Amino acid sequence: MKKHLRLTMVVVVGALVLGALVFGASCSSDDDDGDGDTPTNGAGLDGDLQAIADERGFTPDDIRHALQSFVPPGEYDEYIMFASGGHSGQIFVIGMPSMRLLKVIAAFSPEPWQGFGLGADWGDTILEEGNAEGLDLTWGDVHHPALSETAGDYDGRWLYANDRANGRMAMIDLRDMRVKQIVDVPNIQTSHGGMFVTPDSEYAMISSKFPMVWPPGDYADVSDYEAKFRGAASYLALDPDTGQVNLDDSFQIELPPYTQDLADAGKLISSGWSFIGSFNTEMAPGADFDVDTDTPIGDPLEIGASEENFDYLHVINWKAAEQIVADGKTTEMGGLPVITLETAVAEGIFYLIPEPKSPHGIDVDPTGRYLVVSGKLDPTTTIYDFEKVQEAIANEDFEGTDPFGVPILNFDSVMVGQVEVGLGPLHTQFDSKGHGYTSLFLESAIAKWSLGDDVIPSGETAFTLQDKVNVHFNIGHLATAEGDTVSPDDNWMVALNKWSIDRYAPIGPLHPQNFQLIDIKDGLAMAETNPMDLVYDMPIGIGEPHYVQIIKADKIAPWETYPAGTDALTMEPHSEAIVSGGERIERDGNNVTVWMSVQRSHFVPDILRVTEGDNVTIYVTNVEQTRDATHGFAIADYNVQGSLEPGETATFEFVADKSGVFNFYCTEFCSALHLEMSGWLLVEPASVNAGP
Amino acid sequence: MKKHLRLTMVVVVGALVLGALVFGASCSSDDDDGDGDTPTNGAGLDGDLQAIADERGFTPDDIRHALQSFVPPGEYDEYIMFASGGHSGQIFVIGMPSMRLLKVIAAFSPEPWQGFGLGADWGDTILEEGNAEGLDLTWGDVHHPALSETAGDYDGRWLYANDRANGRMAMIDLRDMRVKQIVDVPNIQTSHGGMFVTPDSEYAMISSKFPMVWPPGDYADVSDYEAKFRGAASYLALDPDTGQVNLDDSFQIELPPYTQDLADAGKLISSGWSFIGSFNTEMAPGADFDVDTDTPIGDPLEIGASEENFDYLHVINWKAAEQIVADGKTTEMGGLPVITLETAVAEGIFYLIPEPKSPHGIDVDPTGRYLVVSGKLDPTTTIYDFEKVQEAIANEDFEGTDPFGVPILNFDSVMVGQVEVGLGPLHTQFDSKGHGYTSLFLESAIAKWSLGDDVIPSGETAFTLQDKVNVHFNIGHLATAEGDTVSPDDNWMVALNKWSIDRYAPIGPLHPQNFQLIDIKDGLAMAETNPMDLVYDMPIGIGEPHYVQIIKADKIAPWETYPAGTDALTMEPHSEAIVSGGERIERDGNNVTVWMSVQRSHFVPDILRVTEGDNVTIYVTNVEQTRDATHGFAIADYNVQGSLEPGETATFEFVADKSGVFNFYCTEFCSALHLEMSGWLLVEPASVNAGP
Repeated sequence: MKKHLRLTMVVVVGALVLGALVFGASCSSDDDDGDGDTPTNGAGLDGDLQAIADERGFTPDDIRHALQSFVPPGEYDEYIMFASGGHSGQIFVIGMPSMRLLKVIAAFSPEPWQGFGLGADWGDTILEEGNAEGLDLTWGDVHHPALSETAGDYDGRWLYANDRANGRMAMIDLRDMRVKQIVDVPNIQTSHGGMFVTPDSEYAMISSKFPMVWPPGDYADVSDYEAKFRGAASYLALDPDTGQVNLDDSFQIELPPYTQDLADAGKLISSGWSFIGSFNTEMAPGADFDVDTDTPIGDPLEIGASEENFDYLHVINWKAAEQIVADGKTTEMGGLPVITLETAVAEGIFYLIPEPKSPHGIDVDPTGRYLVVSGKLDPTTTIYDFEKVQEAIANEDFEGTDPFGVPILNFDSVMVGQVEVGLGPLHTQFDSKGHGYTSLFLESAIAKWSLGDDVIPSGETAFTLQDKVNVHFNIGHLATAEGDTVSPDDNWMVALNKWSIDRYAPIGPLHPQNFQLIDIKDGLAMAETNPMDLVYDMPIGIGEPHYVQIIKADKIAPWETYPAGTDALTMEPHSEAIVSGGERIERDGNNVTVWMSVQRSHFVPDILRVTEGDNVTIYVTNVEQTRDATHGFAIADYNVQGSLEPGETATFEFVADKSGVFNFYCTEFCSALHLEMSGWLLVEPASVNAGP
Repeated sequence: MKKHLRLTMVVVVGALVLGALVFGASCSSDDDDGDGDTPTNGAGLDGDLQAIADERGFTPDDIRHALQSFVPPGEYDEYIMFASGGHSGQIFVIGMPSMRLLKVIAAFSPEPWQGFGLGADWGDTILEEGNAEGLDLTWGDVHHPALSETAGDYDGRWLYANDRANGRMAMIDLRDMRVKQIVDVPNIQTSHGGMFVTPDSEYAMISSKFPMVWPPGDYADVSDYEAKFRGAASYLALDPDTGQVNLDDSFQIELPPYTQDLADAGKLISSGWSFIGSFNTEMAPGADFDVDTDTPIGDPLEIGASEENFDYLHVINWKAAEQIVADGKTTEMGGLPVITLETAVAEGIFYLIPEPKSPHGIDVDPTGRYLVVSGKLDPTTTIYDFEKVQEAIANEDFEGTDPFGVPILNFDSVMVGQVEVGLGPLHTQFDSKGHGYTSLFLESAIAKWSLGDDVIPSGETAFTLQDKVNVHFNIGHLATAEGDTVSPDDNWMVALNKWSIDRYAPIGPLHPQNFQLIDIKDGLAMAETNPMDLVYDMPIGIGEPHYVQIIKADKIAPWETYPAGTDALTMEPHSEAIVSGGERIERDGNNVTVWMSVQRSHFVPDILRVTEGDNVTIYVTNVEQTRDATHGFAIADYNVQGSLEPGETATFEFVADKSGVFNFYCTEFCSALHLEMSGWLLVEPASVNAGP
């Protein structure tokens, strides 16, 4: 097998593995967008405007960038970007091009502003479900948000995101932008290849990151890595009405104990297929440690996993897998039907393709034909042709098999191009005109390059570098508007940079990440020589986004209020909803149940008397229907805080285990008399009634 | 006593109390800044820039606003704004004028991105201290951030904020922008009048919101409100070196069972004094509820607390109170010396001034002479002269006393002006030229008006309305740059609007708050007719800020990294810090202690073997000193997540109570081989060694 590795790669690997701790760009604060401008006037402004520009030291580029990104007060952004929050465990909703943070959606971590996990049943229920396997988790590490799709286009209904730390996933309903489901995915401990949605939202795909002891529940040492550890590719079936995961219709495929990385779903001609990158096909477990001499034995994972020049792109026919599941050729494990490696190979649904080297992204172009991988220790992107992949499978054009018997397609038969993009390529996005945009972590840049002759503009040469733009600094992923669909929008791109270095005034040792907005429109005024035009820096000092998806704002239709008496958990009428006048209190032994209404600016009832030890259930209905008329419900010292949007009914259950008089109040500044919107929970000491 | 109430007030009260649910401004999406512009060209742009402006439909105002607010990529904001997060429990750090969110500082709520409350000792220790009184709180309701001051100017060292829900406070060190202390303030259950810092950071002031049963620990029904409930004003002594609260030097003053609201510290001529507004001097407890007929008995608090036309501004001489404490004329309560109401009156340190009506803000002007209150049910701001207050006290010019014997100063003797500003005035800020800016909640506007003759420009008339600007919508607080100091900066103002209504595309029933940036510079180009110029809308979809303070960015000097081996809890060297090569593992019975290093891109050691039930302590040192080279430390399924900034050492302690093989990894995308930065915690089942 002849593989196209370039000399540069060796240099890169050396620099990285030997710990040279390279980052790729110098830091200039005089000319921070790196395009060589210096402050000057003459940008085309007259008097008053020029005076402002002069006072602020603006270059002509600065003035143009201001006009490109500014969204005037009260006007709307054209796009909504959903960004994973990384280890914040949340999802960020960002307007584009203004790059304003519109909302943080609580997902895996409790969040009191939204009343998520502070006593209201909606959040408590979902967090408990996400801890179904005996866990007690109050965070997640959200990596890859995925919007639901219809016919390969974002449809604005649901959003999925994985928890890389704990192998879980969350589903968010875009009608109210609240999480509706957290699933602890069986048989995977961690995840990275998720979420990726199939073109008609049949499945949300999520695969394991690091393999785990298999079957789950067994114990083995990492020295038994190859024999006892396995990964899994999960196809979580989505209910076409609610968008929720239905585990009964879901399945998994056992994978070799490589470290599965990013994934993507096929589209159009590659519909029905899915693709997962991997690294550590060396199956290195990391360094052991000699506790007598206090020294490491062997190489850490970063070295052990970087020895081979190729890892394996996993190619899986999920459509055919459905039939195997239907035929019952599966093993039940953790409540899911699992197609074993042996069955997957025997049934011809699982193949490998060599991919250079320690890859991060596997990205399918909008036509579904081109599969692009970027090996972070290789200076190229490598492009495979799905049609050639199909031919190779049909012809059994294999290089051999891996240690688990999985056929390896002949690299030279399926690879149609390699573009030398630069150092540390990670992830690729596309426009609709046959271009890939690949992030370069080490180089802190984005490379624009051409796909195959069938999709590129006349005059361009296939698989050639077209342009580069510097970003600041250490870019991970990137995203174009509507970028993962069959029809990207060809106007905006966002770079997700991991380090900000000198881009923002110091705000402590934990610095913000840096999102950069880049104009990729053709024929941009004043920028003919630089089609990728860096417009705006957005600091992210609230989490560490790994990926975003960007959807046209008018494709989502969120509710402005809930219909009266809605249960946010089900989006259906709440059985205990009331209207004004329907308030009541019932007592049954030591159970006290309250049906409470809230509206500007009072609770009814607003004095609650219980006895220490009582089980208290309060059904609270916000009886308003005015947009923005949210009320909070918080009880001092009881760790209860709910956010009740107009029309919402929520349940608060607790044991009145602290005696005393506790103020409860509305936490949302709802009206001029908001501060008066308050009541009392009187918990009479049990001893008062019980006597001495 | 002759009091200057205006007819309008009655109308306002009626509208509010009868539940007319007024909000103050109509919503126009065609001309959202309300200044009458329509899209047109001719703004002073030539060719290319005009093409962009035309394509985006910009008005001349839009173009100017873009140039005023835009901060070019890589350049710094001139100001840093610290905003309370409301019931998110966090603090927001925002750059101005770009209005970009630079960071969220975890304060009262666990936050995994910063590793706060997820197993690292720094956060766990602080959260536990904040629950010292047997509570188990995982949130707070942050209302009023206060920067430390030297000679009445922000000095950029520390930040304080209250927890309105649970009567607590947090202290943040601006060197690393991490919380260092949470104090559950004794003898108050809730708080609103906090934090406010005295001019040389002698004390952080925090008073009770709703009164509580007194002495704390007793039980009483709300029907005993006047007899058994009390509030308290707290003066928390600040350590001049660390900024932390030292309860040993702190004290409280018992207050009547009114609902104490906002507060402020005197400055310059009023140094040594403090001021607290109040409402519900009616001492209404709210409506009772008949459980037989399921109907309320009596009025809810919003009506009961709004019956009287005047409430009481509390005027307290804290400097004299110090001497009373030193003289031992106090009662110990909850570990604090408390000056009883009786002593406070007898010693002449506590007075009341009538203030109309249900006031929110009490704000001291930059000279320290003018005390401004805004009664939210009165259409005026009322201005008292501190010199006249001193005269009235000296002359015992009293109207009488309240039911608790506190002298009430003669309103007409101390009031020097009332300005009819509009509907629902709440809070006032100042410039350095003798102007107050008062937020109008019901009118959704800001009124600019003149203070007394000694401070206003020649030609202006004292205590007169000068200008108004509409804001969107329902403004609570507002802040000017350096606004609470003795020398405001006269350029920018921010409106903290509670409702956004139609200002942003719908993102679900929980809508963002809306910060609006307003230019208040004199002689603004193109805006001579409208000195207050609305420039920018910033959505706040992450919490509900109640107040901000705005400091010049160059007055704070955060650390870019920690000195090697720093303990973030103490900001001192950590006793268990190591350098590379100093890693080790020690076992003592079932106690396992690990000294671990992290650097790009590996942990040493990276395979840890323990037995189920072992007590595990891991000291983790980030041995790097490069800015941005943060590493995370997370263990799958163990709910452990720490953020280790360069130079930081942290401790993770847990019981290995789950057997199995658990991936641990770096949660910060730190390098090209970040994904390989991983290790294994092997927890061998106890039964393997114990036998069957």
